[in-house]
Amino acid sequence: MQRYFVGQPYQDGEWISISGEDHHHIVRVMRMQEGSEIFVVFPDQSSAIGKIERISSDAVDVSIVEWESDKKEMPISVTIASGLPKGDKLEWILQKGTELGASGFIPFKAERSIVKWDEKKGKKKVERWEKIVKEAAEQSHRTLIPDLSSPLTLKELLVKADGYDYKLVAYEEESRAGETSNLSNVLSEVKPSQRVLILFGPEGGLTDSEVEICKENGFIPCGLGPRILRTETAPLYALSAISYQLELMR
Amino acid sequence: MQRYFVGQPYQDGEWISISGEDHHHIVRVMRMQEGSEIFVVFPDQSSAIGKIERISSDAVDVSIVEWESDKKEMPISVTIASGLPKGDKLEWILQKGTELGASGFIPFKAERSIVKWDEKKGKKKVERWEKIVKEAAEQSHRTLIPDLSSPLTLKELLVKADGYDYKLVAYEEESRAGETSNLSNVLSEVKPSQRVLILFGPEGGLTDSEVEICKENGFIPCGLGPRILRTETAPLYALSAISYQLELMR
Repeated sequence: MQRYFVGQPYQDGEWISISGEDHHHIVRVMRMQEGSEIFVVFPDQSSAIGKIERISSDAVDVSIVEWESDKKEMPISVTIASGLPKGDKLEWILQKGTELGASGFIPFKAERSIVKWDEKKGKKKVERWEKIVKEAAEQSHRTLIPDLSSPLTLKELLVKADGYDYKLVAYEEESRAGETSNLSNVLSEVKPSQRVLILFGPEGGLTDSEVEICKENGFIPCGLGPRILRTETAPLYALSAISYQLELMR
Repeated sequence: MQRYFVGQPYQDGEWISISGEDHHHIVRVMRMQEGSEIFVVFPDQSSAIGKIERISSDAVDVSIVEWESDKKEMPISVTIASGLPKGDKLEWILQKGTELGASGFIPFKAERSIVKWDEKKGKKKVERWEKIVKEAAEQSHRTLIPDLSSPLTLKELLVKADGYDYKLVAYEEESRAGETSNLSNVLSEVKPSQRVLILFGPEGGLTDSEVEICKENGFIPCGLGPRILRTETAPLYALSAISYQLELMR
């Protein structure tokens, strides 16, 4: 069943009015009719099964049938900062990262990022990325759409990093040195609603100096197991591990 | 540094002789020379840094420089059985599943698999899949190449499943019903070297009757968190969770 994130809070007893792109999607793409059911998600993350009551040329009016009760979101907020990778790998990270519960994504221009970021062409790319994140949030039944930042420099990322309760940098050398407990220690300390930022390198990894700068700025280096993970796999490992510890193992 | 799985066990004090496709790769693709270093992995999973001593028209002779000491493989064996998905999704599962430590892969023809398996064309596909698994094992620094089965029917898979110590079936309905502990319980019981099989549905999931048959055959249904995971994401979640519990949290 299709899922739509609506912009306005729920007004008790009133129909929800859906317009714009989602109206187009419901009416022209999915060709739904009065009586069809959809999921609706409100800005406060409450969500429900809704029934289409009326379709007009610019709005779809929906009534609430039944509120969803299960909690879809991770108890903590996890933001994935990825060194800009080549090709469409970031799209893979955004899509699967959203399925796996990330709260936000911050691509950054790492020293070894081969892709050079062009501000003009970049605008279209970011729009495309936003679409991917939104669709993935709908498909995985999330109750929020993860944030997406335009690509930042490492400096800009470090400024933004100040707002997080925990900062981790996934670093291959740490795995090689047998580091196995830092991620696990953070996850046993972290409290509900706290914000965690995890930084990953591009293909080729982070340089030693990038890792040093991160450490100087309060990032805890952590290993992600003994095997080498590609730039697009490492964030998925981290998110899965976090979900497993905080949502399954409870 | 390139990694090569050699077919013969190490003979103490003797040079390792590499021929065939890997000889071609070393000499023609990578254009290595005498003195170049490579990783070599033996059938018993021991591995070392080797130095190329001599290159001839059909063999590359390598001496051992230093044995690798870190353990790259998971302490248990995890086989991923995936309902045949569309397009190239299985290739993603094979590549990333290998990075994440799977011991083997068994594609199977699920009721909702849209792809119809053609035995003749299938042979080429399996060869391609084997190549993907081998390259991923090399790139992620594994010391074994995961097994890959040709696609089986569910019946054939259930016969094969008898050889496993634990059998799990990832089932969305379980997540919806709030099941969070079965995976975790199995992981706290499982002993080193034991064999675990996890079954995943294709797009559209497993049918209720497929799940019933699995349960009747000793499969434990388990949830993988509150969000819907795509057919190609779910195995990666499971492998990451297993690695996190058994390799990081120790």
